[in-house]
Amino acid sequence: MQKNLSNVRGFKSWGSHVGIKSKRRDLALIVSENQSNAAAVFTKNKVFAEPVRLSKKHIKDGKAQVFVVNSGNANACTGSSGYEGAVAMAETCSQLLNVPVEDVIVGSTGIIGEPFPTDKVTQGIKEAIPKLSDRQVSGSLAANAILTTDTFAKEGFVDFKINTKQINMAGIAKGSGMIHPNMGTMLGFIICDVAISSELLDKALKEATNKTFNMINVDGDTSTNDMVAIMCNGAAGNKEIIEENTNYNIFYEHLEELCMYLAKLIVSDGEGATKFIEYRVSGAKSDKEARQVVKTISDSKLVQTALFGQDPNWGRIVAAAGRSGAHVKLEKINLKVCGEKLLEMGQPTQPNRKTLRLKMKESEIVVDLNLNLGKGTSVGWGTDISYEYVRINAEYTT
Amino acid sequence: MQKNLSNVRGFKSWGSHVGIKSKRRDLALIVSENQSNAAAVFTKNKVFAEPVRLSKKHIKDGKAQVFVVNSGNANACTGSSGYEGAVAMAETCSQLLNVPVEDVIVGSTGIIGEPFPTDKVTQGIKEAIPKLSDRQVSGSLAANAILTTDTFAKEGFVDFKINTKQINMAGIAKGSGMIHPNMGTMLGFIICDVAISSELLDKALKEATNKTFNMINVDGDTSTNDMVAIMCNGAAGNKEIIEENTNYNIFYEHLEELCMYLAKLIVSDGEGATKFIEYRVSGAKSDKEARQVVKTISDSKLVQTALFGQDPNWGRIVAAAGRSGAHVKLEKINLKVCGEKLLEMGQPTQPNRKTLRLKMKESEIVVDLNLNLGKGTSVGWGTDISYEYVRINAEYTT
Repeated sequence: MQKNLSNVRGFKSWGSHVGIKSKRRDLALIVSENQSNAAAVFTKNKVFAEPVRLSKKHIKDGKAQVFVVNSGNANACTGSSGYEGAVAMAETCSQLLNVPVEDVIVGSTGIIGEPFPTDKVTQGIKEAIPKLSDRQVSGSLAANAILTTDTFAKEGFVDFKINTKQINMAGIAKGSGMIHPNMGTMLGFIICDVAISSELLDKALKEATNKTFNMINVDGDTSTNDMVAIMCNGAAGNKEIIEENTNYNIFYEHLEELCMYLAKLIVSDGEGATKFIEYRVSGAKSDKEARQVVKTISDSKLVQTALFGQDPNWGRIVAAAGRSGAHVKLEKINLKVCGEKLLEMGQPTQPNRKTLRLKMKESEIVVDLNLNLGKGTSVGWGTDISYEYVRINAEYTT
Repeated sequence: MQKNLSNVRGFKSWGSHVGIKSKRRDLALIVSENQSNAAAVFTKNKVFAEPVRLSKKHIKDGKAQVFVVNSGNANACTGSSGYEGAVAMAETCSQLLNVPVEDVIVGSTGIIGEPFPTDKVTQGIKEAIPKLSDRQVSGSLAANAILTTDTFAKEGFVDFKINTKQINMAGIAKGSGMIHPNMGTMLGFIICDVAISSELLDKALKEATNKTFNMINVDGDTSTNDMVAIMCNGAAGNKEIIEENTNYNIFYEHLEELCMYLAKLIVSDGEGATKFIEYRVSGAKSDKEARQVVKTISDSKLVQTALFGQDPNWGRIVAAAGRSGAHVKLEKINLKVCGEKLLEMGQPTQPNRKTLRLKMKESEIVVDLNLNLGKGTSVGWGTDISYEYVRINAEYTT
């Protein structure tokens, strides 16, 4: 059957309804049997939520055993009572699971600025803890309990070998953004049964996040609550990875694969979006410049509306590249959209318009830009801008 | 990554938002590249929805190529304009996909008695068809587009071998019931790349449904829209299964496994339910009598409330068995709840109350009843009845 959090050894999970939302599940718990090495990355927004404030402290020692996450209330801009709410979540888990309070990582997502319903959430945690299990459904319930405006749950699973040991890694994520700038939080929680040092885990998570979650463009902003956290409990029994050797590389590669999968699912769920767009930039002076180009194109409203209109408007794509700050020479540029050549060395080609038009009706569009100036490459993902997006956002601001 | 509909060869799918629901996806399409052998079972309710009326006709020849399903409106008790709406869904698919109209199976779920928004749905089908794909996300989108009050999408996948050929089978389902007697529809759609005759497929689907979807008790009733349908397109390249040989048995076994997995997910999502309960009855005079006992116990309000109260009230379980119509002798009965013996040959034991109480707080309860009168066995699944269930249902009827 479909593998998920429940297939990672030594972890249990659950997702329940504690009453922050009217009906849907709103509390997720992921618990390791033993203290795990852990890492987390947080929003760079200077305004950040209370659970972020707490979890930043708790992750400092590179250890964790529990992820507890509520949806429906972001616990942001809630002041000291909000902070106490986050602490209460951690303390309730700590007491009932007999885990040091510093090993509880707390996350929240939902509406900003509403008083945090601490009693409801702690009572819900008490009822959920006996239900923690590794039944297959448990992982899905946790994945669903962290959603807000998402239209589907985002779950991923990979397995691989390190030496002869089977390693299982699973993750859940949420995020859809666009229409709810106050609620467009991106959350990701990953667990793995590999043994690896906290230092390397931190390095791997930062690198993987930069190449995946940070390369998606949905609403172009980071929220107050963004967080990606990982726990590795060593239940696989491999010799602990403590240096950047082949084993580290194998681990890293699969972590990146999982993060990329989850990041792409978030883009696929962009509300009001009708297309999933992959931007591949090559031939830049450096990887950094390639990333700049990807980010500028994918955030260009002119490009986004053109792609919604199924118009392969290469002018807008090239113009966005040109203003990205990266080195760009028009006469060097090769551009393909949906595999069809539009520009060769800066010169327009004669693509088969009919084929191109049909391909652009599909749900996935690939924009492939070669600057032919160096070896820098980058890949990123974004959405189009539809009438629906404009309509909803227009309504939202009134 | 997580396998789903998208991993069955020769099929494409999509799930989109056509505007029947305010925000969530409400149209699912599953399309085979070629005409497939197919089967379907439908609600036994004498009042049935318009898409059921149409699909019963379309499945008669044992062939299908398209499943098209909307959520948000059940298209039931909608009269001739509702029937025309179902026909329009089939015809739109038929024209745009160049498929005989009889090969389109139509399903609906949602509110009963509301006029069916035919234009919105057919327009939505037109926009969705170019997006049909086998990208991993497509299967999940389809799974999410058939939900109503469900709190999570139900997807399953199995693979196995027939001779040397790899066979992939995937399914999606919806159903949560309980609080919405008008919307408690159970839908299941299964696709497989095996080659098998329509006759055997029909037999296998009926048998698997009887052992799985028909053995779950959520609200004790069948809705106007219940439907389970399967298409097998032969893309696996095995020699067609045309008799009940070993290959048929392998196929059947995995079909039952998939149906059981999906059926259990439906029970796990019973709204207002706090427990998933498995009822195992053995030692009945016949399998049929065992099934009667399972159905009576799992539908007993006294048993359901006791299990919510975490009370191993064996008296109520035995009483329900006693009135089921099956042969039952109290002095023969062995009963276990959560693996703890409560009755042996009709005599109460002295279970460890503390252990039992802890186990009954878990999310999954197993009731194991041996009648010691014969060889009949049956297994079924149900939920408890919680305060929340009563509260919601009480509110619903006012």
